[in-house]
Amino acid sequence: MPLALDPAAQDLLFREARTANTFTDEPVTDEQVRAIYELVKYGPTAMNQSPLRVTLVRSAEARERLVPHMAEGNRAKTATAPLVAILSADNEFHEELPHLFPHFPQAKDAVFGERPVRESSAAMNAGLQAAYFIVGVRAAGLAAGPMSGFDHEGVRKEFLDDDHTPLMIVNIGRPGPDAWYPRSPRLEYEQVVTSV
Amino acid sequence: MPLALDPAAQDLLFREARTANTFTDEPVTDEQVRAIYELVKYGPTAMNQSPLRVTLVRSAEARERLVPHMAEGNRAKTATAPLVAILSADNEFHEELPHLFPHFPQAKDAVFGERPVRESSAAMNAGLQAAYFIVGVRAAGLAAGPMSGFDHEGVRKEFLDDDHTPLMIVNIGRPGPDAWYPRSPRLEYEQVVTSV
Repeated sequence: MPLALDPAAQDLLFREARTANTFTDEPVTDEQVRAIYELVKYGPTAMNQSPLRVTLVRSAEARERLVPHMAEGNRAKTATAPLVAILSADNEFHEELPHLFPHFPQAKDAVFGERPVRESSAAMNAGLQAAYFIVGVRAAGLAAGPMSGFDHEGVRKEFLDDDHTPLMIVNIGRPGPDAWYPRSPRLEYEQVVTSV
Repeated sequence: MPLALDPAAQDLLFREARTANTFTDEPVTDEQVRAIYELVKYGPTAMNQSPLRVTLVRSAEARERLVPHMAEGNRAKTATAPLVAILSADNEFHEELPHLFPHFPQAKDAVFGERPVRESSAAMNAGLQAAYFIVGVRAAGLAAGPMSGFDHEGVRKEFLDDDHTPLMIVNIGRPGPDAWYPRSPRLEYEQVVTSV
């Protein structure tokens, strides 16, 4: 087996980890979220642009405002998960770039001066960071339930602003009863990887 | 420390892992790439759509065709890395969906019947899978050098087809001398995570 990562970690992050649809009542603490962030913040992005932003839906009032924006099949689990996080891309990430990428401080204007360039780059790189975040939730021994089925424009208006684009909403907690379907098949290696 | 993942795995995947700019001559085998895929294929995507495709640039002839499409600052490392992989999104991923997502076989046409919907979903979800792939390269004890600085349309025409959109190109191998810059700063938790 040519992996350096130990098998228990492989199981925790990938092989046995599953997208949860039900959760126990056990709370997810700010300390846990901080530990997740302090780990996954090191995942690479282009020019270290780090455009991911996370909005934790902590109050009952905010949860009530969120649920109606979810696709119908996502409402019950979003209403009951111990913690719900809105992941978004900051389209004005370039303001932090002189600090984040000191090798090339001019990149803020020379590369990312135009908003459409920023939006495209932020979507791609915040997407990478969303995946690192999911891996981080699993690293904390928790289950993630990432969802793209929601009214993106409605969530943007309700919780974000014109400079932030919602990417996904993630339910977080310990898996509850009947938390998942049987594992769906994956593509064979030969269907995915080719050589030239 | 509220993470379940053991500290050595945290270091391997995030804390000590770095984007490499130089590599040793040690080859990266197909067995290693297969082990990476067999681990990260389990990372979640929306409706298990799994749109990531990987083109390994194995032949010297293909490498010669690739290098001129790279941004100037990426050419030397792409010319010398033990293995270069082109990661792309398959915009026709829906053809596999009845197999990949048997809970809802109608999704192929009902959700993903329109090409623009597929392109947007494939970009986002293949982006997630690109991040899992980077984590998988690190899980194999190797360093990844992901790059978005290349002529995307040129690479598409040279190596892919109209149904595939290149996302990033990743150099893979063991880090060589002076493989990286000092670690750049990350955003503080409070700059990234807020609560409502």
